Amino acid sequence: MNQKPNVPADCKVAILGFGTVGQSVVQILTKNTPPGLRLTHIYNRRIEEKKVAWVPSTVTWTDDVNSVLSSDVDVVVELIGGPDPAENWIRKALEAGKSVVTANKQVIAESGPELIELAIRHGQTISFEASVAGGVPVVRGLEEGVSGDRLSRVVGILNGTCNFVLTQMETSGETLDEAVKEAQKRGLAEADPTADIDGLDARAKLAILSWIGLGYHLKPASIVSHSIRTIEAIDFAYAAKLDCTIRQVSLVERGDGDNIFARVQPALVPTLSPLAAVKGSQNLIMVTGEFGGETGFFGYGAGGDPTAVAIVSDLIGIVSRRQSPLLSVQQRGADSIEAIGNLTAPHYLRFTVKDSSYIIASLAEILSRHNINIGSVLQEPGEDKNALPFVITLEACSSSIVEQALSDIKALDFHVKTPVSLPMFPNLLMHYASG
Amino acid sequence: MNQKPNVPADCKVAILGFGTVGQSVVQILTKNTPPGLRLTHIYNRRIEEKKVAWVPSTVTWTDDVNSVLSSDVDVVVELIGGPDPAENWIRKALEAGKSVVTANKQVIAESGPELIELAIRHGQTISFEASVAGGVPVVRGLEEGVSGDRLSRVVGILNGTCNFVLTQMETSGETLDEAVKEAQKRGLAEADPTADIDGLDARAKLAILSWIGLGYHLKPASIVSHSIRTIEAIDFAYAAKLDCTIRQVSLVERGDGDNIFARVQPALVPTLSPLAAVKGSQNLIMVTGEFGGETGFFGYGAGGDPTAVAIVSDLIGIVSRRQSPLLSVQQRGADSIEAIGNLTAPHYLRFTVKDSSYIIASLAEILSRHNINIGSVLQEPGEDKNALPFVITLEACSSSIVEQALSDIKALDFHVKTPVSLPMFPNLLMHYASG
Repeated sequence: MNQKPNVPADCKVAILGFGTVGQSVVQILTKNTPPGLRLTHIYNRRIEEKKVAWVPSTVTWTDDVNSVLSSDVDVVVELIGGPDPAENWIRKALEAGKSVVTANKQVIAESGPELIELAIRHGQTISFEASVAGGVPVVRGLEEGVSGDRLSRVVGILNGTCNFVLTQMETSGETLDEAVKEAQKRGLAEADPTADIDGLDARAKLAILSWIGLGYHLKPASIVSHSIRTIEAIDFAYAAKLDCTIRQVSLVERGDGDNIFARVQPALVPTLSPLAAVKGSQNLIMVTGEFGGETGFFGYGAGGDPTAVAIVSDLIGIVSRRQSPLLSVQQRGADSIEAIGNLTAPHYLRFTVKDSSYIIASLAEILSRHNINIGSVLQEPGEDKNALPFVITLEACSSSIVEQALSDIKALDFHVKTPVSLPMFPNLLMHYASG
Repeated sequence: MNQKPNVPADCKVAILGFGTVGQSVVQILTKNTPPGLRLTHIYNRRIEEKKVAWVPSTVTWTDDVNSVLSSDVDVVVELIGGPDPAENWIRKALEAGKSVVTANKQVIAESGPELIELAIRHGQTISFEASVAGGVPVVRGLEEGVSGDRLSRVVGILNGTCNFVLTQMETSGETLDEAVKEAQKRGLAEADPTADIDGLDARAKLAILSWIGLGYHLKPASIVSHSIRTIEAIDFAYAAKLDCTIRQVSLVERGDGDNIFARVQPALVPTLSPLAAVKGSQNLIMVTGEFGGETGFFGYGAGGDPTAVAIVSDLIGIVSRRQSPLLSVQQRGADSIEAIGNLTAPHYLRFTVKDSSYIIASLAEILSRHNINIGSVLQEPGEDKNALPFVITLEACSSSIVEQALSDIKALDFHVKTPVSLPMFPNLLMHYASG
């Protein structure tokens, strides 16, 4: 078990991409330089516009990525984002005998296992703590911290933009559009917030957590993702009556055999659950292990500085000659697999109708025909009779059967808005069982 | 940056101590044997009484620790607990060229830095994830996950027994003695619960977190520890009026220069803070970093199975030839240092008095003499006039000045019980600032 003592090497680091995260990384590296790390190159397009005086003069600024890839740097930090050309540059860096640190969730979600193999083949490592939940060290937590356990489930709040929007709606009563505008004003949402709001960002992160935590590499596109766009302020009022609030929940769970259930969707979670306690742009991840029970990680999942902490922690891991994360992950099956999107849970259905006497009877008849049991019917008093919202909760049932029932229900003539269906996760409270 | 691929070695493992945790470790190792690990020895006193049939017959049972230390095992897992003879055996194992995995908080809190040096000298590692917060991977989280940050504070709930007792009092209205008995009945408290209740267990863990997170090795005995014995059911009622509850909080914070503030005590924490959400025997640790902001870890801090997950994760770390945790911790100053116990915070004072008209005036006069400002006075109606509890909250002030004032106040003649003083940590809510 002989291991090398920590003799810091002279590890030369290049940054590809000098945006928000890149600037934070360079700030940490120049302010609290970790032993053994030396920043040598910064690449960006139109580099002349990017130069700043506070970066040490020994650093080479360049807009020619090939000059970085053919240099003698030891580690390339990829902060370009998006699939192309980032993945190609990561491959080139590994093939050129450089280790890679990346924050690129899309590339890791799609090609993580392949890139690990490429890294091993070239005697290098690829680290990507920053690709999930920014500054929250969950990649290392799952891969090393609970490696002695066998995990059955990972559930989390993986998108800070959605979480900001939902907690903003929850606390201020704003509409989704207003909350999105507020997020944009604060730099927490992009001009086109689709990837966040519709769950595409979260599902890439969930695919990475499934791979690291459960050993199953899911195709991100196979993960069912429901947008939070359907949520209205009234849903928070009804959720509160059920001692719940609404969060964008990402969930992956081991089923029988090699079945893996995975979904990203807005869902009702108990007010007292850790998921409800996550406010603003924070992230939280809880894992369930056969031996360790529930273990959780939380913190800031986005923003330049928290993400930069993950990047620099990865760099320190490399210079300390720790092994790359994931070299010890045993993937079940060589290929990436399809996720199963079906889910058994209680459900929350919100209808907005032109009031009439036969509505409940019609709904009850259709639900009964699909063998779905009603849990409760909730209606706030004093609403507009021409656009009356009310809620039916369903006892635990399959989400695909709920969808079939809803398709029958949508054919009825009293709807003023499309019905909204959300799963409820009451069992996340089990975390709180005392003792 | 060339790193070895993960070729599992044949790593022979000996367990010292076949109690609750030892049995869980052996169960995990025989049920989900991680590649490269092989259990070869189990040591315990009176080993004949300990033998069980479900352990593979290839394992050697022994009550002679020297036969283990002189064998060809690669890693010794120390689960004896307590300072003596555990520390001696750990030293002998390292000197004999074996790596060590330990759950021993006392030994690591006192001698961690020395043992790391001894391990390095002998080309070995010592890992101790299980010594703090059981299955919660906070040692690795601080040492690796947020190594790129500069931490200023670690705050946590580090003792599951105290947390069970306090949440039991909170939810059932039981007295402390009743709640302790309940904890004993459930195997969550020892026959003599002093080390838990009086904070001695938590302060050893806090010393370890200070060393790993902030780089300061505190002498555990120098950390001020206040018992939770003073807490009564009425304190939860008054805390609720202040939107707070009561937890045993362990806190270490960087001050000016090389000053380190550290304390273990019952304290008021906001109902909406993550600390309040920790129920039963769970643990939670939050760290504050210059760049990453607040990052947290939670889960089961005790019990055989969660603790065993930490042990097995450490074993996997060793067999994967990752570097030992802590080899990269830069300790500030070679020697261990004294903690400063003073604290500036709002305070909660609970008095139990024989009612009379001059009490508030007398208290206000003494507090004013010490330049302490009163925040509020709370009194529940309808209490016994001969043993009337009431609460005064103080604006932020130094805990040492509060103690001076209390010593004057205790001389007054109206007390039926000794006054209780608790700090309040309202700023733990800052975690919840949205955006």
